[in-house]
Amino acid sequence: MPPVRDVVVLVGSLRRASWTRRIAVALAKLAPPSLKLEIVEIGELPLYNQDFDDEHRIPAQWQAFRDRVARADAVLFATPEYNRSVPGVLKNAIDVGSRPPRAGALNNKPAAVVSVSPGALAAFGANQHLRQSLVFLNMPTLQQPEVYLGGVASLVDADGNIIKEETKKFLVSFLESFAAWIEKVR
Amino acid sequence: MPPVRDVVVLVGSLRRASWTRRIAVALAKLAPPSLKLEIVEIGELPLYNQDFDDEHRIPAQWQAFRDRVARADAVLFATPEYNRSVPGVLKNAIDVGSRPPRAGALNNKPAAVVSVSPGALAAFGANQHLRQSLVFLNMPTLQQPEVYLGGVASLVDADGNIIKEETKKFLVSFLESFAAWIEKVR
Amino acid sequence: MPPVRDVVVLVGSLRRASWTRRIAVALAKLAPPSLKLEIVEIGELPLYNQDFDDEHRIPAQWQAFRDRVARADAVLFATPEYNRSVPGVLKNAIDVGSRPPRAGALNNKPAAVVSVSPGALAAFGANQHLRQSLVFLNMPTLQQPEVYLGGVASLVDADGNIIKEETKKFLVSFLESFAAWIEKVR
Amino acid sequence: MPPVRDVVVLVGSLRRASWTRRIAVALAKLAPPSLKLEIVEIGELPLYNQDFDDEHRIPAQWQAFRDRVARADAVLFATPEYNRSVPGVLKNAIDVGSRPPRAGALNNKPAAVVSVSPGALAAFGANQHLRQSLVFLNMPTLQQPEVYLGGVASLVDADGNIIKEETKKFLVSFLESFAAWIEKVR
Repeated sequence: MPPVRDVVVLVGSLRRASWTRRIAVALAKLAPPSLKLEIVEIGELPLYNQDFDDEHRIPAQWQAFRDRVARADAVLFATPEYNRSVPGVLKNAIDVGSRPPRAGALNNKPAAVVSVSPGALAAFGANQHLRQSLVFLNMPTLQQPEVYLGGVASLVDADGNIIKEETKKFLVSFLESFAAWIEKVR
Repeated sequence: MPPVRDVVVLVGSLRRASWTRRIAVALAKLAPPSLKLEIVEIGELPLYNQDFDDEHRIPAQWQAFRDRVARADAVLFATPEYNRSVPGVLKNAIDVGSRPPRAGALNNKPAAVVSVSPGALAAFGANQHLRQSLVFLNMPTLQQPEVYLGGVASLVDADGNIIKEETKKFLVSFLESFAAWIEKVR
Repeated sequence: MPPVRDVVVLVGSLRRASWTRRIAVALAKLAPPSLKLEIVEIGELPLYNQDFDDEHRIPAQWQAFRDRVARADAVLFATPEYNRSVPGVLKNAIDVGSRPPRAGALNNKPAAVVSVSPGALAAFGANQHLRQSLVFLNMPTLQQPEVYLGGVASLVDADGNIIKEETKKFLVSFLESFAAWIEKVR
Repeated sequence: MPPVRDVVVLVGSLRRASWTRRIAVALAKLAPPSLKLEIVEIGELPLYNQDFDDEHRIPAQWQAFRDRVARADAVLFATPEYNRSVPGVLKNAIDVGSRPPRAGALNNKPAAVVSVSPGALAAFGANQHLRQSLVFLNMPTLQQPEVYLGGVASLVDADGNIIKEETKKFLVSFLESFAAWIEKVR
C-alpha cells in the first residue's frame, strides 16, 4: 500500500458560505486514498509583524499554524481572487508560514494551486501571483493540470458536492496528478 | 496658490524599525507644498471577511480606515516584498478599502507605488503585483518614474532622513511627478 | 467639434482568421467620431536586435513602423494569449517601438488593452503582462473598464461585426472611456 | 557514471556582445559532467503564425528548431529584460516551440531560468513572466536557487569567464541543483 500523505489545505476566503471553501471540501472528499486533505484555518492569524519573531513574542496562533504546516507532507492552496490578486488573508498565512527565511514551515513542501471564482476569469490573477511566491519558498508546484474553476456557482453545492460529472472527473484527475507529483519531488 | 492635496500613505510593514516606514517618513518630509502626506495605520485592521459587510457587522477599525481613505485625494503605497509579492498586511488593507465593489474608499483615487528593500531587487515583485490590483480598483497610477529603492540601508537613517543627495533629488522629482499626475487625472 | 485622435491598433496574432483581428476591426467600426482606429501591421518586423540600432543599420520595416507609431495620438493593444503571456510577435513590436530608451515611438502615448480568447480565461495573463511593459514605457493606460473578451467565437463574425447587443454596448462604452482618457492624459 | 543530459540553452538577446549570451557561455563552461549545455539559436525563427502550422507550410527554421529542442533532456532559459518582460525574440521561440498544443517540442521538459541585466533589478520581470509560460507548458521548473544576475558588467568577461569567485561558486551550485532537479522530475 502506498503511504498516505498529509496535505494541508489553505482556503483564501473567510466567509462561511465561501465557494472556495466548498471546493476545498469537495476536493477532500474526492481525494484518492493516498492523500488525506485537511483544511487548516487561517482566519485567526495575527497580521505578520517581524518584531514578534525577532523578540520571541510569537503569537500562539502563529505557533500552532507553523507546527501544523511543518508536519504536513504537502500544501494545497485554494484561492479566490480579491482585487486581481491573492486575498490578504491567504497572503498573510503564507507570510506567517514562511518564517524564518528558508526554514519556514511552508518552505520546500510540494504544492498545488486551485483558483475559484463565480466569474469566468476564474481567479487567474490570484493563481499566478500565488505561484510567484511559491518560487521563492522553494515549493515544487504542480504545473499541469492548472485548475481554474470559473462559474463556480454551477459546479458545487453547499455541502461540497461537485454537481457536474465532467468537473468531478477533472478534479479527481488533478488530485491523482498531485499525488504523483508529491511522490516525485518530496 | 495650488490646492493642497491630501495623500494617504499605506506602509506594508508593521515592524517598528521598518525601512519602508522610514522611507515613507522621508517622503512626507520631502513632499512639495501641494502634497500633504500622512501615514494611515493598517496593522489593526481585522482580516477581510465578506460576512462582516454582508451582515452589517463592520469592525470599527474597518470603518475608520474606510472613512479616512475616502476623504483622501490620492494614495501612495510604500511596500516591502514578502515572498516575492505584496505583504499580506498591505493586501488586507487594500481588500478592506476596496469594498463595496466599485465604490470602495480606494476606488478611482490617483495612486503611486514605492517599493523598498534592503536587497538589490528592490521589491520589484511586490511593486508590480500591487499595480495589478490598482487596475481593478480603477486607480490611475503614476507610471514613471517607477520607484524601486534597493539597498535601502544605505539610503535612509532611522529618523527618515535621506542620506544621499542623489536619492533625495530623485524622490523630490518623483513627488513632483506624482503631484502633477494627481492634478491631471483627478 | 472635438479633435479626431489617431489611434494605432496593434494586433497580437498573425493568422488571417484571427479572432483578435476581427475584434480590432469591430472596434474600428464602433469607435466614436473623435477616435480614428487604424490597424498597423507588425508581422514583417525583423526580430529586435540592438546591434541594428547601435550600428545604424535600421531595417526599413522598423523605421516605417516607428514613424507611423510616432505620429499617433494613442495606442490600442489587441492581444490573444500565447502560453499565458503576450505573443512574441506583439512583444517584438513593442521592443522595436520602444527604442531608443525613453524616446521610442511608443513611449508616453496613452494606451488601452483588449484581450481576446476563444476560451473563458480571456487572455488575462497576456493582458496583465502587457500592462507591466506599459508602466516602463510611461504609457498612461486606461484602467477601467478592463476588456477581457472570452468565448469570442460567439461574440464577433468573420467581417468584424459584433453579434450580441450587450457586447456592442460594452465596447462602445469602453471606446468612449478610452477617448476621454486620451483627452485627460495627453 | 551518471548519464549526460542534453540541455538546450535559449538566449533572449541577439546582439553580438550580449551580456546574457556571455553568461550562457559561462554556464556551459561551468556545467558539471552530467550536463552538456548547448546554445540553440533563435534569431532566424520567423514570427509565429498559426496558419503555417494549420496549412502545413512549416518554415524550415521552425522545423529545425523544434527537432533540436525535442531531442533535448532539459531547457535552460537565459534572458535579459526588455520593457519589464521577456524579449519578443525569446517569447517567439517559446511560441514556435510550444506547438502543437500540449505536444510541442518544449512541453514537459525540465527547465530553469537565469535572468541577466546590467542594472540592479536583474531582469526580475522577465524571469517571472517567463515562469508563467512554463506553467502552461507543463515544464517542471527549478524554484531555488532563483538566478538573478544584476550588475552583470562586473560579473563576466567578453569570453564568458566569470570574474568573481563568489559568483562562480553560486553558478556551479545552481547548475548542480538543476542537474539534480532534472533527474528527479524527468
